[in-house]
Amino acid sequence: MDTQNTQTSDRIGFIGLGIMGKPMVRNLLKAGYGVTVFNRSRAAMDELKGDGATLADSIAHLTQCVDVIITCVSDSPDVDSIVFDSQGILNHVRPGMLFIDMSTIAAATSRKIFQALQTKEVSALDAPVSGGDIGAQQGTLSIMVGGEKNAFDRALPILQAMGKNIVHIGDAGAGQITKACNQIVVAMTVQGVAEALTLAKKSGVDGAKVREALLGGFAQSKVMEVHGQKMLDRNFNPGFKLDLFRKDMNIVLQTAMQEKISLPGSANAAEQMNALQAQGKGDLDFISVLTLYELLSGIGDSIVD
Amino acid sequence: MDTQNTQTSDRIGFIGLGIMGKPMVRNLLKAGYGVTVFNRSRAAMDELKGDGATLADSIAHLTQCVDVIITCVSDSPDVDSIVFDSQGILNHVRPGMLFIDMSTIAAATSRKIFQALQTKEVSALDAPVSGGDIGAQQGTLSIMVGGEKNAFDRALPILQAMGKNIVHIGDAGAGQITKACNQIVVAMTVQGVAEALTLAKKSGVDGAKVREALLGGFAQSKVMEVHGQKMLDRNFNPGFKLDLFRKDMNIVLQTAMQEKISLPGSANAAEQMNALQAQGKGDLDFISVLTLYELLSGIGDSIVD
Repeated sequence: MDTQNTQTSDRIGFIGLGIMGKPMVRNLLKAGYGVTVFNRSRAAMDELKGDGATLADSIAHLTQCVDVIITCVSDSPDVDSIVFDSQGILNHVRPGMLFIDMSTIAAATSRKIFQALQTKEVSALDAPVSGGDIGAQQGTLSIMVGGEKNAFDRALPILQAMGKNIVHIGDAGAGQITKACNQIVVAMTVQGVAEALTLAKKSGVDGAKVREALLGGFAQSKVMEVHGQKMLDRNFNPGFKLDLFRKDMNIVLQTAMQEKISLPGSANAAEQMNALQAQGKGDLDFISVLTLYELLSGIGDSIVD
Repeated sequence: MDTQNTQTSDRIGFIGLGIMGKPMVRNLLKAGYGVTVFNRSRAAMDELKGDGATLADSIAHLTQCVDVIITCVSDSPDVDSIVFDSQGILNHVRPGMLFIDMSTIAAATSRKIFQALQTKEVSALDAPVSGGDIGAQQGTLSIMVGGEKNAFDRALPILQAMGKNIVHIGDAGAGQITKACNQIVVAMTVQGVAEALTLAKKSGVDGAKVREALLGGFAQSKVMEVHGQKMLDRNFNPGFKLDLFRKDMNIVLQTAMQEKISLPGSANAAEQMNALQAQGKGDLDFISVLTLYELLSGIGDSIVD
């Protein structure tokens, strides 16, 4: 496919060059976009210079040089300060710019940013992703987008350089709500698979055969397929770190509290993540919840004592 | 496909002509097997007579007329009494017969039956199914089999008349453990989808778009696809009745207690089913757990007040 066909002439600024952001910038560069980058630590910026990125001295500087700003950072307060600090985006934007936040943050923060930028005639989209570092590298991220339709249409060719399954869900914040829904389902499905494999193991039944059988019926899921296999392989390398998943579950539960929504299963999943963090497993993949089930059920070969 | 190719000459006896058993017998008849049937209530037997089934007066009578006995009834005590009652199977079998229990029951009961029949030189398989009444009608059930390999090989052409994804998991009881694993995963995935759709609804986000977006990523599951759509349609027609799912979760939790396995998510799912039964929803499909989330979160349009 000639990616030039779908490319816009927008100059892109990208803030946040972590495990996700770095490969996302590379995919934008590969698609032919001019990309100016900024990151708190300098090393990742220097790395991307070799790939053709332009380096900015500050967020204010970056904002002045580009038409579209993409952020991909850790949590709500990070995005909040990137936008609202005195040297942040809000004080330096020009009318007609587009802001795309691809971080996973609270929908309430996304809505607040949308409204603030609207006063400057700048469009904002919340566009969190799913698919992990592999998806970021391969340009196959799922992207869930909230914001106005015309802003979505403008962003689409840019997003297509980074992802495959790109859905405009609804108004500002709808992307973040969808990502929260995604994390709820993934967390609880992973728990279900962990409980099932624990039952199989302690009952003396081959977990690999259980997985194989279950993939053929209503228990089929991407989690059973991918994370179920990781559990059987006892491969706890992230993937997606438990610490980051716990942060996402905090967003889920904060949103639930604000909107008055009772989510007992999500609350329980977050509690189990607390226990795993207490056991020093925050840097492991989130499938390490399996080790909690093993601990509870007296199965001895947990990788971390 | 010429199903005659894989057919054995075994005469089949089938006990339990419920929502699952009746279509399973029809598929055996279609595949060319001679089938003798027995059921507690006479109506279902008469119905199958028109399809070519032979009717037995009693379990003892059926046992004397056939080579392979299949049971498909509700719960462990039902299978227990079919086998162990004075007029039951155990007192009337002949060496070389094969017993296949396709009910969902406790693995401990399956193992007890296996051992008792072994003393009579009769092979036994536990072969619970997944796929519901639709799968039974279409002959596309997933079948999870425990027992000896040579018994499995003998049973395979018979099972192929009723199912598609047929896996020999391991020794006696392994099929039931696998079914328990299946129910754990389905119950917890359904909860996850219900929590996600509740969050979406109360946050003013279109659940159909959330489902569509999530199906493209790690939150994908057969449950999201099929039961997620049923939730959005507010279609609570069974499918699989909550009362029966609660029975299966009882098997899960009894097995967990006996084997000393801690399954907090499964226990919570069973508790939610208790609440739904208390609200008179036992005859609805098990996706009615959605209405519990709506009740908890003050969403008003639950179908049952």
